[in-house]
Amino acid sequence: MFNRNLRKLVREINSWISSKFVNEPTRCSEIITKDIYNRKFSKYKIQNKITALAAAAGYLSLTFQDKRHVIYADTVQQQDLPKIPLKPELPIYTTDEVSKHITKDTRIWVTFQHGVYDITDFVHEHPGGDQILMAAGNAVDPFWMLYSIHLNSHVLNILERYRIGNLDPKDDHKDVVRDMSDPFANEPSRHPILKPASKKPFNAEAPENILVQSFLTPNEIFYVRNHLPVPDIDPKDYTLEIEIEGKSGNLTLSLEELKQFPKHSVTATVMCAGNRRSEMHKVKPVKGLNWGAAALGNATWTGASLREVLEKAGLSEHELDKYEHIQFEAYDTDTTGSPYGASIPIWKGVDKRGDVILAYEMNGETLPKDHGFPVRVIVPGVVGARNVKWLAKVIVSSTESQSHWQQKDYKGFSPSTDWNNVDYSKSPSIQELPVTSAICQPMNNSTVEVKGGKITAKGYAWSGGGQEIVRVDVSCDGGKTWHVAEFDYHESKKYPRHWSWTLWSCELPVPKGTENMEIIVKAVDSSYNTQPESFENIWNLRGVLNNAYHKIYVNLK
Amino acid sequence: MFNRNLRKLVREINSWISSKFVNEPTRCSEIITKDIYNRKFSKYKIQNKITALAAAAGYLSLTFQDKRHVIYADTVQQQDLPKIPLKPELPIYTTDEVSKHITKDTRIWVTFQHGVYDITDFVHEHPGGDQILMAAGNAVDPFWMLYSIHLNSHVLNILERYRIGNLDPKDDHKDVVRDMSDPFANEPSRHPILKPASKKPFNAEAPENILVQSFLTPNEIFYVRNHLPVPDIDPKDYTLEIEIEGKSGNLTLSLEELKQFPKHSVTATVMCAGNRRSEMHKVKPVKGLNWGAAALGNATWTGASLREVLEKAGLSEHELDKYEHIQFEAYDTDTTGSPYGASIPIWKGVDKRGDVILAYEMNGETLPKDHGFPVRVIVPGVVGARNVKWLAKVIVSSTESQSHWQQKDYKGFSPSTDWNNVDYSKSPSIQELPVTSAICQPMNNSTVEVKGGKITAKGYAWSGGGQEIVRVDVSCDGGKTWHVAEFDYHESKKYPRHWSWTLWSCELPVPKGTENMEIIVKAVDSSYNTQPESFENIWNLRGVLNNAYHKIYVNLK
Repeated sequence: MFNRNLRKLVREINSWISSKFVNEPTRCSEIITKDIYNRKFSKYKIQNKITALAAAAGYLSLTFQDKRHVIYADTVQQQDLPKIPLKPELPIYTTDEVSKHITKDTRIWVTFQHGVYDITDFVHEHPGGDQILMAAGNAVDPFWMLYSIHLNSHVLNILERYRIGNLDPKDDHKDVVRDMSDPFANEPSRHPILKPASKKPFNAEAPENILVQSFLTPNEIFYVRNHLPVPDIDPKDYTLEIEIEGKSGNLTLSLEELKQFPKHSVTATVMCAGNRRSEMHKVKPVKGLNWGAAALGNATWTGASLREVLEKAGLSEHELDKYEHIQFEAYDTDTTGSPYGASIPIWKGVDKRGDVILAYEMNGETLPKDHGFPVRVIVPGVVGARNVKWLAKVIVSSTESQSHWQQKDYKGFSPSTDWNNVDYSKSPSIQELPVTSAICQPMNNSTVEVKGGKITAKGYAWSGGGQEIVRVDVSCDGGKTWHVAEFDYHESKKYPRHWSWTLWSCELPVPKGTENMEIIVKAVDSSYNTQPESFENIWNLRGVLNNAYHKIYVNLK
Repeated sequence: MFNRNLRKLVREINSWISSKFVNEPTRCSEIITKDIYNRKFSKYKIQNKITALAAAAGYLSLTFQDKRHVIYADTVQQQDLPKIPLKPELPIYTTDEVSKHITKDTRIWVTFQHGVYDITDFVHEHPGGDQILMAAGNAVDPFWMLYSIHLNSHVLNILERYRIGNLDPKDDHKDVVRDMSDPFANEPSRHPILKPASKKPFNAEAPENILVQSFLTPNEIFYVRNHLPVPDIDPKDYTLEIEIEGKSGNLTLSLEELKQFPKHSVTATVMCAGNRRSEMHKVKPVKGLNWGAAALGNATWTGASLREVLEKAGLSEHELDKYEHIQFEAYDTDTTGSPYGASIPIWKGVDKRGDVILAYEMNGETLPKDHGFPVRVIVPGVVGARNVKWLAKVIVSSTESQSHWQQKDYKGFSPSTDWNNVDYSKSPSIQELPVTSAICQPMNNSTVEVKGGKITAKGYAWSGGGQEIVRVDVSCDGGKTWHVAEFDYHESKKYPRHWSWTLWSCELPVPKGTENMEIIVKAVDSSYNTQPESFENIWNLRGVLNNAYHKIYVNLK
């Protein structure tokens, strides 16, 4: 039920809090109460103020030294949380002491409930990467409310290994945590077929065999990749801001105004960079959501052409050399109030053949909440992470987005790069994705009936950058023989704007008496790029770009 | 010494011959003599009429049934040829009889000197592919004069296996062949460092370690890939014709007129589709020139923009949907008089970011004869075969070039496709090339001195389609550890117009006591496509697209 740009609100909250308490931060907890909050910010008509408060809290946690009591106040609901044990044999620390430990040199401390932890040696192993440092010297509780993947005994057991003490009971912020509302309370309902890789934020994919039943993926089973809580936006109040750096007077469009632009449709596959991560993870553990092979989907997206909107905002052809990137900012924000953000190279957004759409429809229906309602950007041929949902702002710029997701995530590295030597500045942000394919039917480890000495495999193949799939090879004898698959759904002659996946099927001969077999698939695209054979040599610490040959094992009957 | 469009001439010759002899082809040999020829065609001022005659002969050989005596007449010089043995024990056939055997059903017969051969069972093994069928029912002699790779005892031995008879002495065309001039007599001189893969037509590459000494490859050591004899064109008489299908009035430009267009330069790597074929050949034999890893080069090409020339010819933006391809025809022609030809998708030629150039300079010098003097097309990011040299004609068309090289060559297939089941219509013509890399220094099987426990490897990496090389990984322990190479020469921030190769170097640690090692390289491009690990799974019958990991073996001292 966000009906304004959350960032604006958070900024205003923080500015107000800062001006009031900058010299007396410890008094925050006494002052920021539900009533005061409502009085001060009632103009925003925020029905679910909790999320805004949580966001503000994140900001404050970086602004003030002692802020444990600041923000959750009595505005939040009770929630059951795992309980960590008391360890009376360990020393007691105050929040003041904890807050001094925020760098490697001073050691990095955090608290959870009444526990104090030195996580310095864990930072490099944190599946969420550097984001853990947002809690340095502070409580992880509010972050874990946002990233509820932490709320299980496995994670708590890991955390306990780093336990060094107990929080001074005077500083215990137990109530705060208990009282914090769930920022995910207003998420949309989802189709039960979606198998979550994480519930909060919601990330889920359909079973592979369901996915490849149709060329256009039904909205309900389209994979969902949310980095943060889904913002709840009233379309009547929605605005999209267009900024061209160095020009005064940004263009602001309402949803209705955006819909006045000529309506364009593009059918495009959107895929997560982490699709098939679970396969790479088996070779050697990686960090990230444990995606199967269904973190992608193909849909017809309808909306305004980004190119035409930028023209309207005053971007002219002869100025293009001044800029290099188009940044997108979203309405979903992290605990610091920073919006989700990403950018694409400018040529992609201004090229007629780029087909970048500011979409408000998906497969002919209003864009669903989980897919960016009311407006998301569709960047065909480019990794899902740049297809920013809940689009708030477009910035034509000389620089890339500085967001975490553009700078410190969604990049590829050498197999020999680990968390000790990784330098994110050395790799480019992922844009176009490499060629890939997967067998979706039969499913891995299933039992298949052999008919007439044959079984049929089905799956998808896709390549980024508008490349067309030109061949899919399937083998059931370890690569000795390759069978060329038939294309069941394939758009031809669209290269270099071949944005949709190809759905294929292939009849495979089964030698008599065979009880089980491995099936392998690889695809070739129109630049004759093909897939690497195995994950060993493309392994990367974040587990992205998992495009090695897809292999499944089936039992035969 | 062609000083006119050879095709025009051949067409006129053939039209004249047809009108005169269509009902009495056997009289051709009595009539087409040097004198008559000179009288009829003197207006063309052809100094080396031999090639034109040979071309006309090829045409005739497809037009008339009995044509052995038609064309070589007394215009040609003597030449030493291998002699095949007489086999009096075999039957005698007339040229009439031979000419009836032109399909699999009737068996495919050819003659060479006075031998008659049934080559039906050899067609699929012919290294030159289907081209052998141009000689069906006819003499291979004139073709072998053009493709002199045949003129050795190894090939003659193979041919003799298929011997079924002797040519009727009355029809023996020995004199014709003996008298045929060498169409390669006027080839330019070449730098002795170029190692020929074939001499006629000339195909050669430099040693790899020389190649990677400079970012811009010197013209003299730039690989040469000629499909036919180099035409000898007088720049004063050169014309380039531009046809837009469905429009009357082609645009014809002289070299001077072409030079009046704004001058554009583009630095681009041009690579043969068969580069590194010798490595694939080791896995399982393939057909084609046995290229090493140096069938590529990087140069600055200067000329007119194809886009601007097409605009001048009347092609307007709103008409583009009517066309799909831009065809290129060359001044070099095969024995049938057909020009070398190729085509590219129209978007590549009309896109500002396509950077397609009608080049008349190479690295600041006049385009050398071997590289297309006076004008060739440079299609950055696209396989060498479409970078047509000695450019005669550009055709904006709804169809692809129908040339042999576009339709029956330069295509990729599954490893399980062989000469018995290949269907060329099933694969797209190669355009953009996939990502590749090679170690050029040290050379394979060389001995390297270890200094300070290390050796240094150097090489190139490149990807088609304007993709930038973003990482080069080198391993000397079989892929257990990957060292990220430094870029010695690399153009950055040019994506998606990153046409030049990247030259890299990498220090490799050598464990004490190591006597020899294998070094492996793989590259990653800006779409994060990477190379396939081995040749087994990308093997294809023509031996193109050889982009598996490059491996070399070195001895250490």
